[in-house]
Amino acid sequence: MNPANPQHSLGRLLLTGAAGGLGRVLRPRLRARSSLLRVSDISAMDPAAAGEEVVQAALEDRAAVHCLLEGIDAVVHLGGLSTEHPFDAILQANIVGTYNVYEAARRHGVKRIVFASSNHVTGFYRQDQVIDANAPARPDGYYGLSKAFGEDLSRFYFDRYGIETVCLRIGSSFPEPKDRRMLATWLSYDDLERLVVASLTAPVVGHSIIFGMSDNTTTWWDNSLARHIGFRPQDSSEPFRAAREAAQPTLDRNDPAVLYQGGAFVRTGPFE
Amino acid sequence: MNPANPQHSLGRLLLTGAAGGLGRVLRPRLRARSSLLRVSDISAMDPAAAGEEVVQAALEDRAAVHCLLEGIDAVVHLGGLSTEHPFDAILQANIVGTYNVYEAARRHGVKRIVFASSNHVTGFYRQDQVIDANAPARPDGYYGLSKAFGEDLSRFYFDRYGIETVCLRIGSSFPEPKDRRMLATWLSYDDLERLVVASLTAPVVGHSIIFGMSDNTTTWWDNSLARHIGFRPQDSSEPFRAAREAAQPTLDRNDPAVLYQGGAFVRTGPFE
Amino acid sequence: MNPANPQHSLGRLLLTGAAGGLGRVLRPRLRARSSLLRVSDISAMDPAAAGEEVVQAALEDRAAVHCLLEGIDAVVHLGGLSTEHPFDAILQANIVGTYNVYEAARRHGVKRIVFASSNHVTGFYRQDQVIDANAPARPDGYYGLSKAFGEDLSRFYFDRYGIETVCLRIGSSFPEPKDRRMLATWLSYDDLERLVVASLTAPVVGHSIIFGMSDNTTTWWDNSLARHIGFRPQDSSEPFRAAREAAQPTLDRNDPAVLYQGGAFVRTGPFE
Amino acid sequence: MNPANPQHSLGRLLLTGAAGGLGRVLRPRLRARSSLLRVSDISAMDPAAAGEEVVQAALEDRAAVHCLLEGIDAVVHLGGLSTEHPFDAILQANIVGTYNVYEAARRHGVKRIVFASSNHVTGFYRQDQVIDANAPARPDGYYGLSKAFGEDLSRFYFDRYGIETVCLRIGSSFPEPKDRRMLATWLSYDDLERLVVASLTAPVVGHSIIFGMSDNTTTWWDNSLARHIGFRPQDSSEPFRAAREAAQPTLDRNDPAVLYQGGAFVRTGPFE
Amino acid sequence: MNPANPQHSLGRLLLTGAAGGLGRVLRPRLRARSSLLRVSDISAMDPAAAGEEVVQAALEDRAAVHCLLEGIDAVVHLGGLSTEHPFDAILQANIVGTYNVYEAARRHGVKRIVFASSNHVTGFYRQDQVIDANAPARPDGYYGLSKAFGEDLSRFYFDRYGIETVCLRIGSSFPEPKDRRMLATWLSYDDLERLVVASLTAPVVGHSIIFGMSDNTTTWWDNSLARHIGFRPQDSSEPFRAAREAAQPTLDRNDPAVLYQGGAFVRTGPFE
Amino acid sequence: MNPANPQHSLGRLLLTGAAGGLGRVLRPRLRARSSLLRVSDISAMDPAAAGEEVVQAALEDRAAVHCLLEGIDAVVHLGGLSTEHPFDAILQANIVGTYNVYEAARRHGVKRIVFASSNHVTGFYRQDQVIDANAPARPDGYYGLSKAFGEDLSRFYFDRYGIETVCLRIGSSFPEPKDRRMLATWLSYDDLERLVVASLTAPVVGHSIIFGMSDNTTTWWDNSLARHIGFRPQDSSEPFRAAREAAQPTLDRNDPAVLYQGGAFVRTGPFE
Repeated sequence: MNPANPQHSLGRLLLTGAAGGLGRVLRPRLRARSSLLRVSDISAMDPAAAGEEVVQAALEDRAAVHCLLEGIDAVVHLGGLSTEHPFDAILQANIVGTYNVYEAARRHGVKRIVFASSNHVTGFYRQDQVIDANAPARPDGYYGLSKAFGEDLSRFYFDRYGIETVCLRIGSSFPEPKDRRMLATWLSYDDLERLVVASLTAPVVGHSIIFGMSDNTTTWWDNSLARHIGFRPQDSSEPFRAAREAAQPTLDRNDPAVLYQGGAFVRTGPFE
Repeated sequence: MNPANPQHSLGRLLLTGAAGGLGRVLRPRLRARSSLLRVSDISAMDPAAAGEEVVQAALEDRAAVHCLLEGIDAVVHLGGLSTEHPFDAILQANIVGTYNVYEAARRHGVKRIVFASSNHVTGFYRQDQVIDANAPARPDGYYGLSKAFGEDLSRFYFDRYGIETVCLRIGSSFPEPKDRRMLATWLSYDDLERLVVASLTAPVVGHSIIFGMSDNTTTWWDNSLARHIGFRPQDSSEPFRAAREAAQPTLDRNDPAVLYQGGAFVRTGPFE
Repeated sequence: MNPANPQHSLGRLLLTGAAGGLGRVLRPRLRARSSLLRVSDISAMDPAAAGEEVVQAALEDRAAVHCLLEGIDAVVHLGGLSTEHPFDAILQANIVGTYNVYEAARRHGVKRIVFASSNHVTGFYRQDQVIDANAPARPDGYYGLSKAFGEDLSRFYFDRYGIETVCLRIGSSFPEPKDRRMLATWLSYDDLERLVVASLTAPVVGHSIIFGMSDNTTTWWDNSLARHIGFRPQDSSEPFRAAREAAQPTLDRNDPAVLYQGGAFVRTGPFE
Repeated sequence: MNPANPQHSLGRLLLTGAAGGLGRVLRPRLRARSSLLRVSDISAMDPAAAGEEVVQAALEDRAAVHCLLEGIDAVVHLGGLSTEHPFDAILQANIVGTYNVYEAARRHGVKRIVFASSNHVTGFYRQDQVIDANAPARPDGYYGLSKAFGEDLSRFYFDRYGIETVCLRIGSSFPEPKDRRMLATWLSYDDLERLVVASLTAPVVGHSIIFGMSDNTTTWWDNSLARHIGFRPQDSSEPFRAAREAAQPTLDRNDPAVLYQGGAFVRTGPFE
Repeated sequence: MNPANPQHSLGRLLLTGAAGGLGRVLRPRLRARSSLLRVSDISAMDPAAAGEEVVQAALEDRAAVHCLLEGIDAVVHLGGLSTEHPFDAILQANIVGTYNVYEAARRHGVKRIVFASSNHVTGFYRQDQVIDANAPARPDGYYGLSKAFGEDLSRFYFDRYGIETVCLRIGSSFPEPKDRRMLATWLSYDDLERLVVASLTAPVVGHSIIFGMSDNTTTWWDNSLARHIGFRPQDSSEPFRAAREAAQPTLDRNDPAVLYQGGAFVRTGPFE
Repeated sequence: MNPANPQHSLGRLLLTGAAGGLGRVLRPRLRARSSLLRVSDISAMDPAAAGEEVVQAALEDRAAVHCLLEGIDAVVHLGGLSTEHPFDAILQANIVGTYNVYEAARRHGVKRIVFASSNHVTGFYRQDQVIDANAPARPDGYYGLSKAFGEDLSRFYFDRYGIETVCLRIGSSFPEPKDRRMLATWLSYDDLERLVVASLTAPVVGHSIIFGMSDNTTTWWDNSLARHIGFRPQDSSEPFRAAREAAQPTLDRNDPAVLYQGGAFVRTGPFE
């Protein structure tokens, strides 16, 4: 927080995964609210704008990550792989990478992290089940497993070291819902921003889990347990319903991708 | 589904109970969305419009019901008695009748049924209790018992044969709420249509139970468990509140019809 | 209750289904505790002993059932079909028959019924799930459906007319467990007697549901909600474990009869 | 209820604590809806307007309270201390005072009371917890304890004597939210009126507990269990968010007043 | 704790209510385990034995209670009225008295209290309901209300000041069960001792609630939430069943004392 | 299963971690029940007895692990680190190692694994909380995190590939309880054997979690959800209570090792 400039209420912020899809969406939006926005990615990023620092680094590079956290007030951790991959790749980018972020946060005294978890932590629930954040994890692949690991890791860093985390179980954040499943899972970019900002500014979050979805008419997730975060989505997938239903008039309910919440992720692999 | 005509997205539909109050409301609305609408009732119905087939039949007539289901994609099963009656009448129309529908659906490979259940399945909860679909049944009469039976029957046909059902525990569907109780239970005709269409088009429903009510300010029912169906009511009983309260300024809370959710049903009978 | 003879603490008792397997087990045990034991069945029974009345009657014979209830203090209702059958047979014996018993009880002022329900009310839960009496019904056939109906019917007769019922979801009551499934579901005859006597003598039972099983090491059912009934089983299937496991060393977990609690019932039918 | 004048649908009403902050807000609003509004307080009040009676009395004066309840249809009980005080003061005003009100209601046959409870009944839950009315009490001081006592007392008077109560766990009812905590707890005056009117007019309330808050984006309370009351707030703290956040840009999460729902109440005392 | 003498593992103990029925039972049993046993009561007590101090004092005498707590390690607080009385008597002995004990404990740094609460905190649950410690209070009179208050008070003193309490919701502790209700509620003296000792010696109790009952076959209470206390009863009411049932062969289920868990307490009063 | 020899009912079994404390306990006990017992460890083991194969291998050696699983019917996976260590060591032995075991099991068609999880998955619950297997993970270190990962991984392999797992959240398995905490957590060696055998032989386990503890009087864990496994412990820590309490007469409840279930694990680290 920079009391000198109320526009910069988020203080000195680190955004990991800044070259990814959601990273590019959030970067300019968070810059406007931060006194400093440090962005990082394993890939090349746009050059630093005013108020920005750009640091290219792999999350599995422990020393580099420790540098990233220096002088930071809070982290939005989007980095790592964001789709299903063979185990070893997930292990490095998401498991080792997230460990590095939390351990560096501990050493530098960073006290809040917004962690991009995923609906794939619970992807093996059926699409006719409505779950909340207390439902046991049913990951739908190595990617989902790595996000379940990140949620548990952040729980530990809160219980042991007092570092607060909001885990965002992001549904499908795209310009618009791309298929019938996304009528349930869509999170608009504006709602994504609202969710991240609420997670950064809520006075007390401890260790919280919230599903990231817009105000969709159809959904599988109940955020009753996360009302303290103050996220109220303003968008909805409903205007896209007719088009998405017309494009996929029939669905094969014997297809696991239709039956389970995780969609096509549940039938990815095995990787031989 | 008829991909050739996206207007007809509900495919070949059977509507039972088409001569009843809600049947007459739904018939034209469903016709507009179906490639074929077959309507049936024990009573005479209006003649067939374009895209319709009209078949007069009693639900307890097993052979007739088997014919009804032939070539059908989905069923909206409103048929049977819709108010309290002596046991034997309920037994035939609602218990035998609903069994006939499901058994015929099994034989013809029909894979989804929208079953008009009733709030009278849980009519013996008090009006100061808020329940969801997992609350144990507390039927308020033979009618409510027959709907509880239908819910359990449809659960069996899903577990055993994979036939999906949405059970609609319909409150009070009338042009407007007629008394103070209906301020809680009212389901407008437009919301009824939304509910039936959502139940027919939701990608995966398994065996689901949803209370059929508009977006009323006062209610006793929690549909959190049914968000996957994608029903969002647009109407409300609130505009009718002042008139209904003025018409019934005092209520006798010693009257079971005031105390329990089922209203006057809870004190109908015994039939001697 | 006959205060004149404390041995006869159960008063004037009606036992239906007295010619069936469990009826024959319970008849002499209940006779010893009753001032009068009236026994009935659709089949022929042993002649009346002292303190007994024997009445052959079909439960679907309404008039006969009304006579059966005359002058009775409490009922142990075992009658009807006790295994899976085509729907019409179940409908008459179990649905109509149980309705007749309750309606006759209402007319004669009988205030407590012990109803032989069945584990097949919830037979479509998996064998790795532990459920209690509040778990929604998942019947595994028409037989299970009829027992779910009887449970709901008895709930109604309690809510509306104050007739108390204990629903016994009997597992497998035989001289000994006959297969590996019965290691979980077995109810010894002595424990069956304890259960029935507790259900008849507990001061207040309202409408209660209890799973009927001995103190087996393996089980799928949690009777925590029924501790007020005062049933504590004294037997166990454990002494039979080695023999049953040796007789069925391998199990095919793709067989629904292995996977689901209802065992072979879940794959009976369809009846064509 | 005065059927002769539908404007006066609340009948003969007693408002205690009429000289307090919320009493002064509610007095004119309730007068417009009552056939008689009797107002009382330990302090001096404005003179009686048409349709009003003004009675100055201490709640711990049993005889005076008994007079207050005479001829009354329903009570809005705001009286007593409304902030933390030493035990003896709370004991007299809130514990003895509320007992006096209920005992007088019993003697005079009053059948409904709206009791101003408080969020301080559960003030020791953390601000990252979302609770409903079934969460065990965790009072944050003697004031909160006295309100927990009032809730239990009213439960007893309902179970034993049939007097219905709605307990309003009021958050922070002021013209606008005064600090960041009130972004979660604010209850606008108009919403307060809606809540009180709904609690007085709902047909059946038995013993209900509802959290009194506007439609705030951030909240810690779930009113799902109280939907039968028919309270739907129309206001929100959201328009005040930017100003409140700017005024308190940083929060010390080691401060119990920041961490717990009760705010500064949780660190008041001890009184030595 | 007195490491010098492992016999005296309970340290310096205060026992209030030492002249009452349970006080007289516990006094010699606790003396044998304490380095010092201070006993108090409003009534005269037996003279001090070795290792004892005897202090006659009323719990409503704040100064006297503060002296009682001096130099004490833990308290067993049985004092106050233990049956239903008019409100004012309960207010002084149980509400003011228990406040005095906790406030004195706070000032003297006492860190654990075993509080004799009562099953009458939940006496208005029916005898066919099984509840645990999280069930909302339903007190059956002023006595039950005062115990609910004590439970909430002790919760506050733990949340605010870290004083641990085990609330014992004692059923019926007598030499033997005296009537049919006590078949469910009986707590033998030996089990009472086990319960108090476990509550004093469990390493961490925070604020816990446990129902005090022997290992009775029939019960209404589920202590699953209190397993950390390490209480395992060794006695049972079962040997007394036949005699108690013979003495009360019939029960009137329209009598609230039969229907509700609180027994005759639920129909005591009103006190006019 | 080897029907030819009912003594060898566990079939061809792999035991990992055979050189560790529990591995050495289980090896001879499992050998007696297996047609083949293959044992492995990273350390040297005793030479192969009759019916055994001994294979020294590191779990992080993927190829070696794939060989280990060849021709195996079921696995008891104890291997990896069993106490807290720096992250990188845990990562290799427990996270990569367990992945290797499951992936090899998938390739070789192994259908059941008994996975040695740990109470440290939930070590950050307080010692006055009683939890069951559905309580969200609260790991107390990297070791606990790796076990939470293993539980989630095995859930995935069941949902995706049908490999059944029983996760044993082992408490403290030693010849006798070594300190006061182990009065709650102790699992005798005989009970450990019972638990492993039950987990291997239960007909259907799907993905189950069970806490591994003897029949201790004090405990924090509720195995109600795991009754289908058929584990009934026969031993208890109670005979050791007096000695353990005498050895640790006082406990410092400000010490996290006293306050939390995980004991000293909760204050191990950070590793700098």
